[in-house]
Amino acid sequence: MNFTISNRMSGVEGSAIREILKLASDPNIISFGGGNPAADAFPIREIAEIANRALAEQPVSMLQYSLSEGYPPLREALGAFLRKNDGIGRESDRILIVSGSQQAADLATKALVNEGDAVLVEEPSFVGCLNCFRTYGAKLAGVPMDEDGVNLAALEEAMAREKNVRFFYTIPNFQNPTGITMSYEKRKRVYELAQKYGVVILEDNPYGELRFAGEPVPAIKTLDTDGRVIYCGSFSKVMAPAFRVAFLCADEGLMGPLVVGKQCADVHTNVLFQHICAEYLTKYDYAAHIAEIRELYAKKCRLMLAALEREFHPSVRFTRPQGGLFISCTLPDGADAAEFVAEGIRRGVACVPGFAFMTDQKKPSSFFRMNFSTPTDEQIEKGVRILGRLTHERFGS
Amino acid sequence: MNFTISNRMSGVEGSAIREILKLASDPNIISFGGGNPAADAFPIREIAEIANRALAEQPVSMLQYSLSEGYPPLREALGAFLRKNDGIGRESDRILIVSGSQQAADLATKALVNEGDAVLVEEPSFVGCLNCFRTYGAKLAGVPMDEDGVNLAALEEAMAREKNVRFFYTIPNFQNPTGITMSYEKRKRVYELAQKYGVVILEDNPYGELRFAGEPVPAIKTLDTDGRVIYCGSFSKVMAPAFRVAFLCADEGLMGPLVVGKQCADVHTNVLFQHICAEYLTKYDYAAHIAEIRELYAKKCRLMLAALEREFHPSVRFTRPQGGLFISCTLPDGADAAEFVAEGIRRGVACVPGFAFMTDQKKPSSFFRMNFSTPTDEQIEKGVRILGRLTHERFGS
Repeated sequence: MNFTISNRMSGVEGSAIREILKLASDPNIISFGGGNPAADAFPIREIAEIANRALAEQPVSMLQYSLSEGYPPLREALGAFLRKNDGIGRESDRILIVSGSQQAADLATKALVNEGDAVLVEEPSFVGCLNCFRTYGAKLAGVPMDEDGVNLAALEEAMAREKNVRFFYTIPNFQNPTGITMSYEKRKRVYELAQKYGVVILEDNPYGELRFAGEPVPAIKTLDTDGRVIYCGSFSKVMAPAFRVAFLCADEGLMGPLVVGKQCADVHTNVLFQHICAEYLTKYDYAAHIAEIRELYAKKCRLMLAALEREFHPSVRFTRPQGGLFISCTLPDGADAAEFVAEGIRRGVACVPGFAFMTDQKKPSSFFRMNFSTPTDEQIEKGVRILGRLTHERFGS
Repeated sequence: MNFTISNRMSGVEGSAIREILKLASDPNIISFGGGNPAADAFPIREIAEIANRALAEQPVSMLQYSLSEGYPPLREALGAFLRKNDGIGRESDRILIVSGSQQAADLATKALVNEGDAVLVEEPSFVGCLNCFRTYGAKLAGVPMDEDGVNLAALEEAMAREKNVRFFYTIPNFQNPTGITMSYEKRKRVYELAQKYGVVILEDNPYGELRFAGEPVPAIKTLDTDGRVIYCGSFSKVMAPAFRVAFLCADEGLMGPLVVGKQCADVHTNVLFQHICAEYLTKYDYAAHIAEIRELYAKKCRLMLAALEREFHPSVRFTRPQGGLFISCTLPDGADAAEFVAEGIRRGVACVPGFAFMTDQKKPSSFFRMNFSTPTDEQIEKGVRILGRLTHERFGS
């Protein structure tokens, strides 16, 4: 049987990262390719404790159908947490629990984007969301990044140029793949531009809690006077990814279609893991746990940055993230990162070449992404040494 | 801010059932409105045991990112189970784990249906899937049901009439809302018609294991010589709904877009609950558990049927399901079930009026759905008595 695949899915390839990780599945390969949080950071004992207790004491409420909007105790706990911790939550904002922040992007796109409508994205950006927008037939318009976040002139130009711009997708903190954090000044200007052009902002903040340097910058959502910001957060990096529990905070005017979308997508998110998040937020020392993760990540990031400094040819530039999971390296003179990464894999070290994060994956790109949260200290030292040698071979004078 | 909602979501209301259940949330109301499996049927002790063990012995593999295709041990266990138990699984079929069978419908629609394409559905049918198809801009074409399943002449007429028919959605066993099971002869003819008109079949079988009367009928998927059947099964009714673990079995030619869709929807399904399903299927007495559920449901269904027989005016017809969760009652002379159900709620008993399950929810409909798995025996007796009195008032001569 020859299947006729829908137009929206015909153009979309699976994540290029996934293909690269397959190449790198050889256990002898050091992988800087993934985006996994460090397993050392999972609060395993507490998760098991809460799960065991809940399944013993209130099994039926953990196992029976629940609300599409989310498990009420988690929605309440999150509401209080976001107000207190992040200054997020207008009177008319509501929280929707979703199955990973990937689903927040999926539901927002389903609710707002017609086929052919434009979605503005930082370029480069998270491939999972770019693909999600593609599966709704969105026209992606990439906006280049500066060292302090999206380029404002290019953003305004895109907002003015593109027809039916339905939202601007941004990861303001420790962006994936660049590691860049958007300055507060830029956040204010981005919000003003969104107001001027009547654009919604989809603010994705999966890494926000993983700040290990510099000063916290308030979310764009804290500036949201008229309800145009859909703010997304996740438990994947602060609890564990396989929870598949995340949330969005958006104006009540959007909740109707978002909740119907959620009903039609998967009815509701796994209840036990919503309960674990609620219990952990309200009855455990969440702040101490976050402090621990930050220290772990700070150490790993410092180690990788020091190795890059020492081993890489100075013509290769790299970002110095204040948090998150990723460092981005740019090769000199527009050299093709895909070729560089392929040779790295042959020598036993995997990274992700930049094309994977671009709106047009066919164009060559001169940067690659390195993850510092998953590899061991030894792997970081050894892997950067191998890649460093390659940079000297290629770019040494 | 006034949001511009996408065309695909603008027309879709939330499940009408949900609204009716809100009316019925008063604890004094007896609800036959839900579709929840009986909580007595959850294998709670075993679920807790497997969860505790997994979180103690292999926490990281339960908590770290996993494959979009599904947790490998569950895919293997299911492959073996489906082959042995149901005769399902061609050489070129593959299994994809999804977050509830609602997501199977979502991903199949995303992969196959362009806006404006036709989807054929049994009429009435499960509102969650009707809404899902609507959220992709599908044109729903309803095909009426006979006592032994979909009307074949109407099905062929619709296949010939509608343009770009992308699939026929059917629940062959103990259909929701009618309780009807499609005969084996009809299944063969449905498959032949699908071949003749080049249509894919989306076979949804969430209740298949809940057969408590009559002989098992092989799935349409067992007839699938050319890979056109997407078969969906779920753990919601045999383990518990909040697992949000289900699966689809489809030809490898469809797996590319389905897996990309899954990546973009929620990356992967919660791993611990996939693990619980895999362990339960392979290391516990699954057959004995199913036998227990069947006995429980048989008893409840018998009780409700006996009460309907005794209490309802004989002009009200009702189905006699061989399994599943639902009985459908039809009022005489095209009386409006919405009005009848509203009066029932005023008297303390909630059902779901038929319009909720129709392709055009605005047309009046003369049937309503009753659930027998959730209410207690006492509630069944008392609720049917109250509704029975109403039938005599309305339809007694």
